[in-house]
Amino acid sequence: MTVRRIEVRERVMARNDELAAQVRARLARHGVAALNLMSSPGAGKTTLLERTLEVLGEPLAIAVVAGDVQTQNDADRLSVHTGRLVQAVVTGGACHLDALQVSEALDHIDLDRTRLLIIENVGNLVCPASWDLGEQARIVLFTVTEGDDKPLKYPKMFEKADWVVMTKTDLLPYVPFDIERAERNCLQVNSALRFIRVSALTGNGLTGWFDLLHRSVVPLAGV
Amino acid sequence: MTVRRIEVRERVMARNDELAAQVRARLARHGVAALNLMSSPGAGKTTLLERTLEVLGEPLAIAVVAGDVQTQNDADRLSVHTGRLVQAVVTGGACHLDALQVSEALDHIDLDRTRLLIIENVGNLVCPASWDLGEQARIVLFTVTEGDDKPLKYPKMFEKADWVVMTKTDLLPYVPFDIERAERNCLQVNSALRFIRVSALTGNGLTGWFDLLHRSVVPLAGV
Repeated sequence: MTVRRIEVRERVMARNDELAAQVRARLARHGVAALNLMSSPGAGKTTLLERTLEVLGEPLAIAVVAGDVQTQNDADRLSVHTGRLVQAVVTGGACHLDALQVSEALDHIDLDRTRLLIIENVGNLVCPASWDLGEQARIVLFTVTEGDDKPLKYPKMFEKADWVVMTKTDLLPYVPFDIERAERNCLQVNSALRFIRVSALTGNGLTGWFDLLHRSVVPLAGV
Repeated sequence: MTVRRIEVRERVMARNDELAAQVRARLARHGVAALNLMSSPGAGKTTLLERTLEVLGEPLAIAVVAGDVQTQNDADRLSVHTGRLVQAVVTGGACHLDALQVSEALDHIDLDRTRLLIIENVGNLVCPASWDLGEQARIVLFTVTEGDDKPLKYPKMFEKADWVVMTKTDLLPYVPFDIERAERNCLQVNSALRFIRVSALTGNGLTGWFDLLHRSVVPLAGV
């Protein structure tokens, strides 16, 4: 029984990896950079994206694929802030996006008019870590209202990430959270991690985040 | 392929339900009440349990099974506050506890000297909802730093719950969170839900939570 479960899981993961490679190649053909944004529920992915689309939606030609378990609330919230397409994926109870869902969402996006694709994953600190979506970089949002030992408790998410965005830093005066220790715990799991500290509410630190997005996009030919 | 996945999943879930029924019967034989505590990562399960064990650990003869993905940090934190046994379950990457893990953890707990078992599930708002652990009631912690639409986005967790504990209410002045709307969203998903508002940091509302625990335990024979 257990053996059968593992076999099935391995085949499912192998198929996902194949599809992710196809997504990656397809995005590369169109010169589109892709970021996979992950975090606990409520860490502020959608709010950060709202601020991002307001400022960089047009300049960086950003398209968004927003995954949600049951509603398309996140996609609706984001659509208010951009004329660009936000494609909703409702996972119907599944706890993460997979490469097939991203591939199907891309069919509804004009990739020739897109430079940066941001994939807002399902709010979950465990499951999304195992699923390659064809992204170029993985970004974990880590909010200061969580415990600073989260990287040690959920190591896979941090092992596989490239950047950690510390969110809701405006709440630091009110919470028992040591941000230096939190970042050290991240580095203990993955010494290559880089950090940005932001408050989407006050705007503090957003320039660092915007810089990261600027550097992520492929330079336009002839520019 | 998809059919095979579903078949395997159904067999796994059916086996879990059998084991959960056995856990429930075993706890009933010993007169032990059991609560399944669930939430997003960082919603404050461990901190609430620390406060709980300090005050009610001995009077209610509380034992704890603490599930963690990779560390046993939560169990270690709790052990500081109680002489009673805290049994750690490290799920090795799995995103929820299952009834087999709880059953095995119970082998290490003296049930004849326990009146209340609190199961601290893995921090995850999706996966644990599907897994019966043999509990009598399910309690979801919902922190005011999350979005107030969480019940609509993660309905299964709230559909299957009995109580919602709103946590970190001391942060309400600093966050864009409408607690009345949050509770209305909970009721929209499950009209039978009941609420407690607490701050484990300031102690506000903890008496309501302690009352719930008092009422959960089976009256001792002859008392």
